[in-house]
Amino acid sequence: MAAAVLAAAVDARYLNGGMSTGELKTDLRAIVGEQGMLEGAAVRERAGTLWHGRIDAELLVRPRSTEQVSAVLKLCHGRGQPVVTHGGLTGLVNGADADARDLILSLESMNSIERIDVSGRTLRAQAGAKLGQVQRAAEERGMVFPLDLGARDSATVGGNISTNAGGLRVLRYGMMRNLVLGIEAVLADGTVLTSLNRMLKNNAGYDLKQLFIGSEGTLGVVTRAELRLVSRTRSQETMLAALPGFDALVELLGRLDAGLGGQLAAFEALWGNYYDYNTALPAQNSAPLSRGAPFYAIAETLGGDPEHDRARLESVLAQALEDGLLTDVTIASSETERRAIWAIREDVWQVKNIAPLLTFDVSLPIENMKAYTEEVCGAVQAFAGPNRAFVFGHMADGNLHLVIAAGDDPATRATIEGMVYRPLAAIGGSVSAEHGIGLEKRDYLPLSRTAAEISTMRLLKNALDPKGILNPGKVFA
Amino acid sequence: MAAAVLAAAVDARYLNGGMSTGELKTDLRAIVGEQGMLEGAAVRERAGTLWHGRIDAELLVRPRSTEQVSAVLKLCHGRGQPVVTHGGLTGLVNGADADARDLILSLESMNSIERIDVSGRTLRAQAGAKLGQVQRAAEERGMVFPLDLGARDSATVGGNISTNAGGLRVLRYGMMRNLVLGIEAVLADGTVLTSLNRMLKNNAGYDLKQLFIGSEGTLGVVTRAELRLVSRTRSQETMLAALPGFDALVELLGRLDAGLGGQLAAFEALWGNYYDYNTALPAQNSAPLSRGAPFYAIAETLGGDPEHDRARLESVLAQALEDGLLTDVTIASSETERRAIWAIREDVWQVKNIAPLLTFDVSLPIENMKAYTEEVCGAVQAFAGPNRAFVFGHMADGNLHLVIAAGDDPATRATIEGMVYRPLAAIGGSVSAEHGIGLEKRDYLPLSRTAAEISTMRLLKNALDPKGILNPGKVFA
Repeated sequence: MAAAVLAAAVDARYLNGGMSTGELKTDLRAIVGEQGMLEGAAVRERAGTLWHGRIDAELLVRPRSTEQVSAVLKLCHGRGQPVVTHGGLTGLVNGADADARDLILSLESMNSIERIDVSGRTLRAQAGAKLGQVQRAAEERGMVFPLDLGARDSATVGGNISTNAGGLRVLRYGMMRNLVLGIEAVLADGTVLTSLNRMLKNNAGYDLKQLFIGSEGTLGVVTRAELRLVSRTRSQETMLAALPGFDALVELLGRLDAGLGGQLAAFEALWGNYYDYNTALPAQNSAPLSRGAPFYAIAETLGGDPEHDRARLESVLAQALEDGLLTDVTIASSETERRAIWAIREDVWQVKNIAPLLTFDVSLPIENMKAYTEEVCGAVQAFAGPNRAFVFGHMADGNLHLVIAAGDDPATRATIEGMVYRPLAAIGGSVSAEHGIGLEKRDYLPLSRTAAEISTMRLLKNALDPKGILNPGKVFA
Repeated sequence: MAAAVLAAAVDARYLNGGMSTGELKTDLRAIVGEQGMLEGAAVRERAGTLWHGRIDAELLVRPRSTEQVSAVLKLCHGRGQPVVTHGGLTGLVNGADADARDLILSLESMNSIERIDVSGRTLRAQAGAKLGQVQRAAEERGMVFPLDLGARDSATVGGNISTNAGGLRVLRYGMMRNLVLGIEAVLADGTVLTSLNRMLKNNAGYDLKQLFIGSEGTLGVVTRAELRLVSRTRSQETMLAALPGFDALVELLGRLDAGLGGQLAAFEALWGNYYDYNTALPAQNSAPLSRGAPFYAIAETLGGDPEHDRARLESVLAQALEDGLLTDVTIASSETERRAIWAIREDVWQVKNIAPLLTFDVSLPIENMKAYTEEVCGAVQAFAGPNRAFVFGHMADGNLHLVIAAGDDPATRATIEGMVYRPLAAIGGSVSAEHGIGLEKRDYLPLSRTAAEISTMRLLKNALDPKGILNPGKVFA
């Protein structure tokens, strides 16, 4: 009896266009088969322990072909059934959260690398292929897929596309947008849009793939992509420097960019307290340079000539040292030393020892960074005491990550979000450099985009997904 | 009397929404002022002698501000008045052609460089600024705007954006799309969309600027742009090589790309007969290498270390020579020699001495290029005799230019277009790598894009320009 009541309640959740859950299940099963479906707890437990998102959905389908994706969406479009597309669940902004009435469409069964064209330097993958899988497939053919980020073994090609992933080498190779040559996507109504262009140049009509890059699953479901590969470089140099002030950071970046003939691939800034905290106990990282400098920088070069490229980097750094831009510097002499330098940067969660964390991912013009970070850190200090705000990030890309250890209860969150986000409006900064908007930053989108821009986003959404079934409520309300 | 009849006939052309030409003129004059308007012959003579497009319009406005552009479009939207936006009139596909009833909106009076941010490496320009003007402004501040093409002193920023211009350095810096960080555009209904982002990374919502890049003035009027600048490089090396076959071209490209640590900035292939023709009288170009090789290649590097970069290029080329990939090679030792090498590539119109020309701008995967060019050149030879088809282009980008000297009467044009375009469909090639579609290639768009893609383009057009007033009939019918 209780079970029947519960079942009826669950059924009611799916009463879209007069279709019951039972009917929906039957129709979906006809498309993806028994193996292609998950129900109930098996769906919800996917939220797991690592992902901080929410999965309340009852049903998940995992189609094995573009045709199945198309049939699922056609069915849902006809019924007004909401669909949340899932990639690797490594997003950080609740962009994949699913409500009880949502159907989850996971691309996990479409995970093949379909072809590699060596002369054209392209790789075609299905959307569910992992980033790390793509990187390894390219490496096996002597090439490189240059997008890289910590979650490489969970994040998928489709997720990287729909969030326009960034990462550690944007300065040299651009974000995911710059590495996608062609896309196959399925529109809300099931229309298959096959734009699997493989050339660097193609101006035959509108570049439709742009619609699906960075739109967080709200305009279509990406099923395949042609990705751009690059040549493997022969040299890699990684340096860590201590600097006396922010202006020196800017000047060092300029000299490395100009002096290394395009070899600069990463330039990360670390505010002094982040370096200090991450190189002292209980952190396990060593301190290759002594603590206490106002700023540190990590730079990495990729070049074609191991011997000479190191000498050239040394010469630029020697001059910078002589000119007082640096107070100390080291270049990694082994892969172990290289990893030790990067570990300081990547040990983001270390700060958790102070208090629960809030993490931010903003971008702003470099010329505004000094005043902006002083303002935010000052406000956090007034609110929560000293050494609660830690700043680091892809400075060359205008992208700073802020980690603030002052608690994460709703009131604290609202206060800190205001401190971090509000100053961005006046300087043309962005509330999201690379993580996206999802649900988490939706309320702050108007700080970075005008009313006309948000109206135009809504116009596009209505044109491509008139029933609003794709990832509803994400990005904007 | 005759004049009155003519005036009435002209007036009838503007009878949109019940508004006469007189009313339209009055309303436009109220927006842009007397200085902001041109009429009659003064408009039509702009087609001039260089541009091969058609201008039959009676009225042209040249607004001086975004607000004026907005007011003009709001007026035209209300009246259903078609608008053709003009930049520098250097397009090659009749994308700026104007009918008698079209109003021309020229951005020529909005031509300022508004700001340069040295630390952020960005430059903000109005849409009517010339590409050359942007390049010089960047150079004066020690930086480079890397887009470059022959028409640099006529082409405008707005035109470069709306055609997604390519040019000579795409391999290194990407097309215009990759160099535009932010855009201000006015929608068909006069809505001003200000998305003047200045950061390399910004994932706050849909990337709306992509809509206006490469859509040839059909989705909005670009009024301003934030452009990305790059560091000036310190070395530039230019080489010309003779090669025994197409496979050697592919291998040489791969070795230069992998061996020069990202310094390769251009790789142009010249089929042998193009080189031979352009280096023999009546052409005025010298032949740095002897004629008669099956293929020639021009490569250019941009790096940070003049002495060493040249030595490295020499070493890669010496190995290639030893391995039989090259039969001869020279590296320019002076700017004069460098220009002499590029002049061979750029002397496109030389072939005009044989017969009137048809020029093509296709892209296709490198792996298909050999068979494709053999097929096209074979078909042209069977139709018009030997040495009527000349091939060269940005091979590394997948982009080949074909120049065919077999006449340009409509029947010949249709025959040759069929020979060049039809084989592209099966290999996923594009009828336009960089010039765009305009009117000239509109009938061939379905060879490169599917029916679903063209429907989706139409869907976007209808959403953003529901009355179809912006550059009507261009790209697709």
